[in-house]
Amino acid sequence: MTESVHPEKRGPAAGRPSALETEPPLLMDLERNVYLEGDRLVLVDRRRLPGEIVRVVCETAEDVARAIEDMVVQGAGDIAVTAGYGLYLASLRPGTGDREGLERAARRLKATRPTGYHLAALMDRILERIDGNPEDPPAVILSSLERALRRQREISMETGRFGETLLASGDTILTHCFAGSGLLHMLRFAREKGKDIRVFCTETRPYLQGARLTAWSVSSLGLETVLITDNMAAHFLSRGEIGKVFTAADRIARDGSVANKVGTLAIAIAAHRYGVPFYVLGYGGPDRRTEKGADIPIEERDPGEVLRFQGIPITGPRVKARYPAFDITPPELVTAVVTASGILHREGR
Amino acid sequence: MTESVHPEKRGPAAGRPSALETEPPLLMDLERNVYLEGDRLVLVDRRRLPGEIVRVVCETAEDVARAIEDMVVQGAGDIAVTAGYGLYLASLRPGTGDREGLERAARRLKATRPTGYHLAALMDRILERIDGNPEDPPAVILSSLERALRRQREISMETGRFGETLLASGDTILTHCFAGSGLLHMLRFAREKGKDIRVFCTETRPYLQGARLTAWSVSSLGLETVLITDNMAAHFLSRGEIGKVFTAADRIARDGSVANKVGTLAIAIAAHRYGVPFYVLGYGGPDRRTEKGADIPIEERDPGEVLRFQGIPITGPRVKARYPAFDITPPELVTAVVTASGILHREGR
Repeated sequence: MTESVHPEKRGPAAGRPSALETEPPLLMDLERNVYLEGDRLVLVDRRRLPGEIVRVVCETAEDVARAIEDMVVQGAGDIAVTAGYGLYLASLRPGTGDREGLERAARRLKATRPTGYHLAALMDRILERIDGNPEDPPAVILSSLERALRRQREISMETGRFGETLLASGDTILTHCFAGSGLLHMLRFAREKGKDIRVFCTETRPYLQGARLTAWSVSSLGLETVLITDNMAAHFLSRGEIGKVFTAADRIARDGSVANKVGTLAIAIAAHRYGVPFYVLGYGGPDRRTEKGADIPIEERDPGEVLRFQGIPITGPRVKARYPAFDITPPELVTAVVTASGILHREGR
Repeated sequence: MTESVHPEKRGPAAGRPSALETEPPLLMDLERNVYLEGDRLVLVDRRRLPGEIVRVVCETAEDVARAIEDMVVQGAGDIAVTAGYGLYLASLRPGTGDREGLERAARRLKATRPTGYHLAALMDRILERIDGNPEDPPAVILSSLERALRRQREISMETGRFGETLLASGDTILTHCFAGSGLLHMLRFAREKGKDIRVFCTETRPYLQGARLTAWSVSSLGLETVLITDNMAAHFLSRGEIGKVFTAADRIARDGSVANKVGTLAIAIAAHRYGVPFYVLGYGGPDRRTEKGADIPIEERDPGEVLRFQGIPITGPRVKARYPAFDITPPELVTAVVTASGILHREGR
């Protein structure tokens, strides 16, 4: 169910005049855009930001699974917590609340986005906890999610804190897609220390997360924010106009390969050529269950999303399309991975 | 003046049911989308293709200059001929038809797009011819344009003929932006020889020439055409899914540096990394007046074009933007330049 909410009754964001003026950035705190209202889950539709705040209300785990598939919410960690709420909704409903029903719901939710690892890891962890304490699944799930949220907030803050140490006043950095609240914390910390940072954001086609989420969020932190199309990054890197690159990762393998939003690889290759450091905000760090880059499945999404822009066809009727949502950046292109527990530099650098 | 033309009275394209079904590709022959009607110049608005055929009618050189600036027409060679027609319109009007008026009109037209060299070269050539034969400037301009058009058509065909020799049946190639009719001739020749070629096209933000012009034109030649966003090229190159890259050039310096639509550099860097040949359709070859890449001015266009998509804002109100329309690919990333007189391989390869 989708409802466009009147500005006066917007729940957590109530009283704010418009999405465009939300401050601090709405996406800095997951609780403000993914939250329970009674036994329903409310998601602020990220596909419509920053133009409007549209709430998508989910009643069942299937509703949540579809919302994740449709990109109402994005970002590996945020998707995981959202799916956790999906499991919570399943635990409340007759027919899906038993162990078998929860298992089924978890399987459905895991299948929504195969590339990130947080989602599957959180589902498995919650099911394990329910097995250890089977009396009250809803309570177990909620306490697991509270813990996950608290942990994610800490990890974002700490990642931002370590990331900030890599910034010098006067830096112009480039980021791609939406690198999560760790990036926003990093920039806020830098600002608090009086560092003057300028941020280039690639728009990140086809969903424009860089334009809609990142550039909007960074500009509302008060930093100079420059939007470019994805194909311009190499040009600015070649001219020395960008001093550092920061992206997130949907999954990092043990060998240091980074799966992230498609387009990351192109930027990493260009940064490497021009000697510009390429940092990955790795939050919790590598996924111990993934040995190497080739082990990470790359989700291919509906090509129709490339053939249209916000519903408008942009090519002829006989044209096909491809839409890999992620790519793999090999470890030799990554200068360092910034995690909540420190900065992992590549050996030999 | 802009007029949306009823399908029944579309001039050169008359009788065709819709732009989407135009065949052979409308953009293969400049005369079908840039042509005189009496003493007015008609331009098929390329920003609206392939959805609709909209004619922009120019009465003066200033109209033509604005149409070029606004991207009604694009591509270095096509822009040059269009500007030539602008000079023709100036030569017909009282007040702009004398030598001084023509000089002024040429200066105005040259200033529209600084990166390509054909435009300035053609303006200079026409003025020189008028100086040698000052009685009838309109006739001199028209005969110069006829010659330029004939020469461009020959050059496109010959470039396509040489390019075709680089293709093997089963190849999947990648192209960026609209590489001109030489690309279409190349693909048509390959097809006539029974070669099976698949073409990946980057959409080419922000104007989407790749999606709207190239993918549409290539698919209407009957080839399998796959549209991708600009940020996906490196992914497919890294996976071995693309065997050769072909782009055009707005200008080639004597040192082999290639100025072309922004995004070309990123693709060239990635192709180099993965050992994929990167060919430039260089048509008439390098510009003798330009020594090296750094001598080519990079046009920066209105950043507002990056902040909106077809008029719709895509980010927050405090976000700035940059819009370099071209980038420079250094010679060491170019495998060969395909010209009308042969294929120029880099020395030492």
